[in-house]
Amino acid sequence: MPPSVPATAIQLQSLVRSDETVQLSLETVEVPDPGPTEVLVRVEATPINPSDLGLLLAGADVAAAVVSGPPDWPVVTAPLPAAAMRAMAGRVGVPMPVGNEGAGTVVAAGSSPAAQALLGKTVAAAGGAMYAQYRCVDVTLCLELPDGTRAVDGASSFVNPMTALGMVETMRLENHSALVHTAAASNLGQMLVRVCTEEKIPLVNIVRRPEQVDLLRSLGAVYVVNSATPDFMADLTAALKETSATLAFDATGGGRLTSQILACMEAAASAAAGSYSRYGSTVHKQVYIYGSLDRGPTELTRNFGMAWGIGGWLLTPFLQRIGLDGIVRLRNRVAAGLTTTFASGYTDQVSLPGALALDAVAAYSRQATGQKYLIIPNR
Amino acid sequence: MPPSVPATAIQLQSLVRSDETVQLSLETVEVPDPGPTEVLVRVEATPINPSDLGLLLAGADVAAAVVSGPPDWPVVTAPLPAAAMRAMAGRVGVPMPVGNEGAGTVVAAGSSPAAQALLGKTVAAAGGAMYAQYRCVDVTLCLELPDGTRAVDGASSFVNPMTALGMVETMRLENHSALVHTAAASNLGQMLVRVCTEEKIPLVNIVRRPEQVDLLRSLGAVYVVNSATPDFMADLTAALKETSATLAFDATGGGRLTSQILACMEAAASAAAGSYSRYGSTVHKQVYIYGSLDRGPTELTRNFGMAWGIGGWLLTPFLQRIGLDGIVRLRNRVAAGLTTTFASGYTDQVSLPGALALDAVAAYSRQATGQKYLIIPNR
Repeated sequence: MPPSVPATAIQLQSLVRSDETVQLSLETVEVPDPGPTEVLVRVEATPINPSDLGLLLAGADVAAAVVSGPPDWPVVTAPLPAAAMRAMAGRVGVPMPVGNEGAGTVVAAGSSPAAQALLGKTVAAAGGAMYAQYRCVDVTLCLELPDGTRAVDGASSFVNPMTALGMVETMRLENHSALVHTAAASNLGQMLVRVCTEEKIPLVNIVRRPEQVDLLRSLGAVYVVNSATPDFMADLTAALKETSATLAFDATGGGRLTSQILACMEAAASAAAGSYSRYGSTVHKQVYIYGSLDRGPTELTRNFGMAWGIGGWLLTPFLQRIGLDGIVRLRNRVAAGLTTTFASGYTDQVSLPGALALDAVAAYSRQATGQKYLIIPNR
Repeated sequence: MPPSVPATAIQLQSLVRSDETVQLSLETVEVPDPGPTEVLVRVEATPINPSDLGLLLAGADVAAAVVSGPPDWPVVTAPLPAAAMRAMAGRVGVPMPVGNEGAGTVVAAGSSPAAQALLGKTVAAAGGAMYAQYRCVDVTLCLELPDGTRAVDGASSFVNPMTALGMVETMRLENHSALVHTAAASNLGQMLVRVCTEEKIPLVNIVRRPEQVDLLRSLGAVYVVNSATPDFMADLTAALKETSATLAFDATGGGRLTSQILACMEAAASAAAGSYSRYGSTVHKQVYIYGSLDRGPTELTRNFGMAWGIGGWLLTPFLQRIGLDGIVRLRNRVAAGLTTTFASGYTDQVSLPGALALDAVAAYSRQATGQKYLIIPNR
C-alpha cells in the first residue's frame, strides 16, 4: 500500500529578479493528481549535477550570496553580474523549479496500464523539477529500477550514465575508434573508464592532479595524463599516437585545453602520415564541449591544420539523434549496471533546506572533482 | 601549330632551411614530356591567392625579408619565427614549387584522346606548382576555357569560384537557408554576392570599412554590416533575424569575430523562439573558418548556447565530399560565367622575378582586401 499523498509539498525554486539578483527559495506547491499516462513520484534522492547549476544559479556571483530566514526555510540571494543578467533576460520574474533527475517511490498513478504498472515501484525519473518532495512525470520519463534497488542508488540513473554511453555512441556514429576525456576523475569520468574498459575502447583520461592519476589507474585506466605537468603536451601526444583517438569530450570549455588536445591530435596524425602537408593532416579531429567548468573564453591557437571541428554537446539532442529504440537500449543497460558500471558516489547528503545553506551552495557551485551532493527531499 | 617547347624553364620555389629562414628563388628546371593522360601547359597567368601564401611564405617574418641577386634573378630570404619553424619541420631542406592555379596554352599532350583533345587550347589548371613557365598536369585537373577566353580571365577559375560555389553547396548539404560571409569585399566575397543574388540566397556580408559597404551595395548586396562600427552587434543581429542565417564562413580566423557571429545568431534564434531555454536555442549555428587573415588565437566567449559548431573548411575535402559528378557540374557553371559571375580583378601584374621584389612580397603578404597580384610567368 503506497503512503498517503499530502495536498501540498515543498519545491526548490530559482528566481531571477529585475533587481539583478537570483533568489533560491523553498515554496509550498500543490501536489498534482497524475494524468492518465503520468505517475506521482515521492522523490527520495536527487543529485546536484553540474548540468543543474546553470538553471539553479543562473550565473550568479555565489561568493556574494547572503541567506535570510530560519535554517529550515532559508532564502538565498546572490547578485547577477551584468553579462549573466543579459543572458537571463528571458527568466526575469519567472520562478523556475530545478533538478534534472532523481529517484523515488510511485505513490499515485494515472489510469493507463503503463502508469498503473509502476504503482508502488521505485523508479528513476528524468523529469526536471526533481528538487521537490513530489514530482508528477510522464511514464516515458521513468526508469523502473530492478527489485531491491534503493532510491539513492538510482538517483543518478540518467544524466551521467546516458552521457557516458552517449560519448561512446557518438564515437561510433562519427567513425572514431577511441576517446579523450577531460575532468576525467569526475563521477562521470570514472563511469566512462568502466564503460570503455568493458567495451575495450581506448580512452585517454586528462586530469589536473597527481592523486587523480592514481585514482583512475586504480580503476584500471591505461592512459591518464596530467595537464598540470610540464610534460603534458608530450604525454598527451604519446597517448594519442598509441590510441589514434581523434574525438574528445571536454568538460572544461574555457581556456586552452580544447586547443591543446587538437594540437596534440594533429601532431600524432602528422607523425603517422610522415610527410609535410601545407594544410596539415587530412585526419578529422573533433572536440565536443559538454561542460563549462572554466567559464572563461575558449582560446584556439589553430595550430592543428584545417581538418577539425569543435561544437557543443548536450544529452537531449543526442538522445533525439538515436531515437526511442536507442534510448531504450541504453536505459536497459544502465538499469542492469546501476550498482556496478554506473554507480555514483556522493560526498554529502542534504535536505532541501540543507541544499540552500551557504556553505553547501559554495561547495557545489565550485564543481570540484570528487565532491558531489545528493538531496534527500523528504528528510 | 603550338609554339615550340624549350628543354628547360623557370619555376618559383620556396625552401625552408635549417638556419630558420625561408628562401624564395627562381630555379631552372627540366620541362617534362607529358605522360599519356597529361598535358603540358605554357602558363600565361597565375594568381597569388591567400591560399598560396602558407606554402609560399611558410609563416616567415616578411617585414624582415632581404633580397639578393640581380633584379631579374632575385633571391628573397626571410627569418622564420620559432613557432613557424616548428610547424614547418617537415619541409626543411625540401624545395617546394608553389601556385595552386593558373591558365595557359596546351603546347604538348599525351597519347590519350582526352589529352590530345586539349592540344592548342587555352585551359585553366588547378595542378599546384603553377608559378612556373611550364606545368605538366593530368587532364582531369584542367578546365577547357570557352573559345576566345584569355588566359588572364581564366587564371582564377578554380579556387575562388569553386570556394564561392562550395559555400552555397555546403549551405544546402547541411540544411541552412542563408549565409554569412566575412572579409566580404574580397574578390571571393564579390563573387559570392553575385552567386547569391542569382540564386536568391540571403547573404549577410561583414566588412571592416565604410567604402567596402558602399562597394558591396553597388553590386546589389542587401545586407552589409561593418564590424568596425559601435552598432556592429546590433546590426548583425538585425540582419540575422531577417535572413535566419545559421551558417557563416569566416576568412579571418583569429580574434573574436567567429564568437560574435555565433552570439548574434543565438540572439536572433532566441528572439524567434520567444521563451527562455537554459541551454540556449535548439537552432544549430555553424561557423567554418576557411582562412587566417588574423593569425592570432580564436577567442570563443561561448555565450551562444550549446547548439553550435566551428570547424576548418578547405576546398579539397569539400570537392571529395561532392564527388566527380558534383565537381563537373560546378566547373561547367564556372566556365560559363568566367567573365561575369566569376570574374576576378587584379590590381597588379608581375613577372616571376617581379613576384619576388620586396615591395610586391610585402604587398601580397598583407592580404589586403581589394589588392590582388597576378603573375605572368612568360613575361
